Amino acid sequence: MRIAIEELEKLCVTALCRVGVSEPDARTTASVLVLADAWGVFTHGVRNLGGYLRRLQAGGIRPAGRPRITADGPAWALVDGDATLGMVSGVFAMRTAIDKARACGLGYAGLRNTCHFGAAGCYAVMAAKDGMIGLAMANDTPTVTAPGAAGAVFGSNPFSFAAPAGDEPPVVLDMATSTVAGGKVFLAATRGESIPEGWVVDGEGNPTTDPTVFTAFPHRGSLTPMAAHKGYGLAFMIETLTSILAGAGVVRTLASWSFADPSIPTDHSAAFFAVDLASMPTGRTFQDSMSRMIREIRALPKAGGGGRIFVPGELEWARHARAVKEGIELPPEAVSALRQVAQSLGLDIPPGAA
Amino acid sequence: MRIAIEELEKLCVTALCRVGVSEPDARTTASVLVLADAWGVFTHGVRNLGGYLRRLQAGGIRPAGRPRITADGPAWALVDGDATLGMVSGVFAMRTAIDKARACGLGYAGLRNTCHFGAAGCYAVMAAKDGMIGLAMANDTPTVTAPGAAGAVFGSNPFSFAAPAGDEPPVVLDMATSTVAGGKVFLAATRGESIPEGWVVDGEGNPTTDPTVFTAFPHRGSLTPMAAHKGYGLAFMIETLTSILAGAGVVRTLASWSFADPSIPTDHSAAFFAVDLASMPTGRTFQDSMSRMIREIRALPKAGGGGRIFVPGELEWARHARAVKEGIELPPEAVSALRQVAQSLGLDIPPGAA
Repeated sequence: MRIAIEELEKLCVTALCRVGVSEPDARTTASVLVLADAWGVFTHGVRNLGGYLRRLQAGGIRPAGRPRITADGPAWALVDGDATLGMVSGVFAMRTAIDKARACGLGYAGLRNTCHFGAAGCYAVMAAKDGMIGLAMANDTPTVTAPGAAGAVFGSNPFSFAAPAGDEPPVVLDMATSTVAGGKVFLAATRGESIPEGWVVDGEGNPTTDPTVFTAFPHRGSLTPMAAHKGYGLAFMIETLTSILAGAGVVRTLASWSFADPSIPTDHSAAFFAVDLASMPTGRTFQDSMSRMIREIRALPKAGGGGRIFVPGELEWARHARAVKEGIELPPEAVSALRQVAQSLGLDIPPGAA
Repeated sequence: MRIAIEELEKLCVTALCRVGVSEPDARTTASVLVLADAWGVFTHGVRNLGGYLRRLQAGGIRPAGRPRITADGPAWALVDGDATLGMVSGVFAMRTAIDKARACGLGYAGLRNTCHFGAAGCYAVMAAKDGMIGLAMANDTPTVTAPGAAGAVFGSNPFSFAAPAGDEPPVVLDMATSTVAGGKVFLAATRGESIPEGWVVDGEGNPTTDPTVFTAFPHRGSLTPMAAHKGYGLAFMIETLTSILAGAGVVRTLASWSFADPSIPTDHSAAFFAVDLASMPTGRTFQDSMSRMIREIRALPKAGGGGRIFVPGELEWARHARAVKEGIELPPEAVSALRQVAQSLGLDIPPGAA
């Protein structure tokens, strides 16, 4: 299904408002989800709307919740998400980190009592659009194993970095610290496909190509950490910088946003950092240096004598540019998830989206 | 060769002072190098002393250089390393970041005009010892390829995170963003051993098990990025946060600290971040939560039904504790490198170190 960005956002806003979310919060949420889809990151876009709506209706996500700063200092703030939508409290917290950075050069906002916030890159790029470097990261329910462990230790704890780059679109790195994000395994399971060896291990730590070993709940297996102890180490760092630094329940107390009782807050945590380039003299040369470095990388010899060396986020921005012009070509899984949402709320899939 | 920590530090200090480094700077440098050796990270310890001495004697590292803050704000500072030893300007800059964090909650120091700084973990752990979270990272000469590239794009750009953990030693993650650090490939080459497939590719991007493809200078091959595009993305972030944010020459202008004309400064860059836990109310629970999380992880089911799940840095601290009691068992490569240093400067290898 091909659908215009504005139409898809409108559909999200309508659905969210129908379950009691205010229009500004619904717009914020829609913009985050649809940005992920426009980037082609369909695992973190509107495909998940139904799961969020279910929790909103059951009360595990509070439709009228309001994130608030519970403590702050010159360069930092702690935010209680009030069990509101992860996108609403995530945008609030990133905005807070940006404000702190404007005052001090650096800013941090720690967010607790939130839910799954979608694609981490959507927050990091907010800083880049304000002329800042941004970092965003979150914890999640344990699904990823570690060297020496038989089962899950940490979540796929995503990490994102973004920076403005002059003439180029912002550089955006957005990665799970697992070998692949769990969403890719769910996608394979939905499609009835097998997965490459190395993505998932079973309960004894043996590799498997059967995605349902992981997608079953309770899980009968775990995702693997990327690059073994390095991915585990990064996930450990992210857990520390999110839940522990924000004073939240640590990893073992989190609830799954997609599987657990939808009436109970999941208690996710996240962390947002911003570096204000305008505060520093080096900020004057930063964007020129970034675009020069990108040009230099593009000009390097290519493997196989051809092709292209992509900058982090470049493929996603190319998809975004096409989506702005031609609409987003949603994959079947997202379409069927949307149809379920529309049906359950008595909404029409917009006519332009057939 | 087994040698006491103090003896090894004394040897380093004597050698560094002999080529014109002040005693305080020599002590700083020795403590960083010997900490790496005590952790068992021999690729980044005294084995490299000879290379630093050669540059100190030729002027590419300035023995009497003084790192200085060139600009600063509430939470940040930019440091010119004055082409001094990477360890001297690295410790100065991390100390600066810690001071800034004490004032604002967060601190950043960007360091340019420095040289190879050894093991990144030595700086991050300085923050942990002051009750802070620390991050340290550096760029390096291009040795690591990227998806789509035929040759090197970034350095192995190391990244380190450390945090205090109550009763437990500080958690320390210290990793190269290549699949393995270049030092491990040099070690294999020195020993005449082959390397596992996946560490190095040749000039056409084909895997090789011959370490000399990489250790030749100019290199005939590249290291691989860890986890492909993710390691490349992290290296990109680190390059941005080090050279570009510090206003230094970007990656293509760096000189190799071990191969290039030793009379020319290498122009390495680094970045140091600190988060002061005492500034935040969550700092009061942080260390208890860390040690509780560590205990929870240790108690999880083990792969194969036995063994242990290690926390980042745990193995290194266990080696460190043994080194404090019994001395450091230096590997043959480090011993022969030290003997060359001692010979060229007319020093005795200490008698207790036979």
